[in-house]
Amino acid sequence: MADTLELHLVGIGTGNPEHLTLAAVRALDAADLILLPRKGEDKVELLDLRRDICTRLLNGHARIAEFDLPLRAADGDYLAAVADWHDAIAAEWRRQIDAHLPAGGGKVALLVWGDPSLYDSSLRIATRLGAVGGAPRVHVVPGITAVQALTAAHGIPLNDLAAPVVITTGRRLREGGWPAGADTVVVMLDSGGAFQAVDADGVGIWWGAYLGMPQQALVAGALGEVAGDILRERARLRQAHGWIMDVYLMRRGPGG
Amino acid sequence: MADTLELHLVGIGTGNPEHLTLAAVRALDAADLILLPRKGEDKVELLDLRRDICTRLLNGHARIAEFDLPLRAADGDYLAAVADWHDAIAAEWRRQIDAHLPAGGGKVALLVWGDPSLYDSSLRIATRLGAVGGAPRVHVVPGITAVQALTAAHGIPLNDLAAPVVITTGRRLREGGWPAGADTVVVMLDSGGAFQAVDADGVGIWWGAYLGMPQQALVAGALGEVAGDILRERARLRQAHGWIMDVYLMRRGPGG
Ligand SMILES: C[S@@+](CC[C@H](N)C(=O)[O-])C[C@H]1O[C@@H](n2cnc3c(N)ncnc32)[C@H](O)[C@@H]1O
Ligand SMILES: C[S@@+](CC[C@H](N)C(=O)[O-])C[C@H]1O[C@@H](n2cnc3c(N)ncnc32)[C@H](O)[C@@H]1O
Repeated sequence: MADTLELHLVGIGTGNPEHLTLAAVRALDAADLILLPRKGEDKVELLDLRRDICTRLLNGHARIAEFDLPLRAADGDYLAAVADWHDAIAAEWRRQIDAHLPAGGGKVALLVWGDPSLYDSSLRIATRLGAVGGAPRVHVVPGITAVQALTAAHGIPLNDLAAPVVITTGRRLREGGWPAGADTVVVMLDSGGAFQAVDADGVGIWWGAYLGMPQQALVAGALGEVAGDILRERARLRQAHGWIMDVYLMRRGPGG
Repeated sequence: MADTLELHLVGIGTGNPEHLTLAAVRALDAADLILLPRKGEDKVELLDLRRDICTRLLNGHARIAEFDLPLRAADGDYLAAVADWHDAIAAEWRRQIDAHLPAGGGKVALLVWGDPSLYDSSLRIATRLGAVGGAPRVHVVPGITAVQALTAAHGIPLNDLAAPVVITTGRRLREGGWPAGADTVVVMLDSGGAFQAVDADGVGIWWGAYLGMPQQALVAGALGEVAGDILRERARLRQAHGWIMDVYLMRRGPGG
């Protein structure tokens, strides 16, 4: 069926090309078209990494469409702005697909940072693609998340024995403090230092930035002792590289 | 340094050999010795899968040591029994290493189901290895978890937009009901039907068993409507295959 449109959302891990799975390499290799959005110049290293994956790991069969990602409105209601933005991205995906696969069918792949399920919009945007042309068949290829890159780099378990874990955002931690019901919390999407919102007593922190990349940085210790180090290191690295992505796990001791 | 002992805990995903990462294949390929514990006859398919990974994906350089995993004491204090069990496993790892790498050094690899950070004891056992001989240098290679296999198979996000997620166990859900502070909860290690402990009103469930394997089974829908289907399907599959591993995600609607 040449006119079936398949959309493969392929998790690529968070910076180490060796974190791609065999399934991810196979899905990218089998694609007729790979969409490669440009997200602005500050993270040019991340675009280079994606380009590198496409050229070094793949057999060169796929056509690669690079395009500029539409920008999100910076003001107004947050959820409404995000919805509009996702619509604009879906429309741009559709334009690229129509331009490069004029027969209307084929396998389209997107390289998704980490795993497509975790704090990523590709699945939601894919749903909107149906509103601007035929709905594609969506396939998800899982990828190693920043959470796993963090625990692997530190050599620590995510959970205490048979205990629960909360994954949350910097904003939530800042607004609500330590989440109820779990002694382990992983924080993503933190614009910096949200851990200052929790009582440091008895809390350990394992922090990582640029995980999987050559500039990977790690700090671990008692929150009360290393909070300042992390803030300084984060500011320094951010300045040196022009951008930063970081994630951390905090754990309260049984007697914490 | 021929006498350095390296222990590589290699995540292999949850049943689909294509979920191995390039780093996992490389780490297994580079091993001098692969420890392949046998966990009892009920899950012989899982042992076969590991054997298959070792023979089909690897170049055959590594020596493979198959051995029976010590059994856990079924009675007494749970945490104490687990600690004793982990000690016994560490001692068995040490015996295998001494037998196969008499020079005392080299690269030892273990195939860890899913990701070594998530509800897995290998990291804790590795820590105990130091108590029965020299401490190894531990390296963790992340792997695709059952959670990611679940969300990928259903094509759903793990989290609502910028919202938190709780990962917990069947036992915890049964004891505490819906965890505070999150509208998405993932349940692992459920001996069956712990979702009956929550108010089904406004809750959706995405369930998966044998994820990544040929017998993969999926059910999704409103919890109130599909809870009975899942219980029946789970019992039927468990009987047919002699064992089952399942995981599910539940989400409360904004107005749920
Ligand atoms: C939009 S989310 C995408 C997460 C991604 N889908 C995943 O599975 O990891 C971006 C957040 O992930 C984390 N992150 C992603 N890549 C990272 C890296 N290489 N090092 C540290 N944190 C990273 C940071 O917390 C960042 O704010
Ligand atoms: C001891 S934990 C190990 C988890 C593993 N380390 C991971 O990363 O997924 C075992 C639990 O994982 C889940 N699980 C593992 N493999 C699975 C599979 N193939 N299908 C469904 N659930 C699975 C089940 O909830 C099971 O009770």
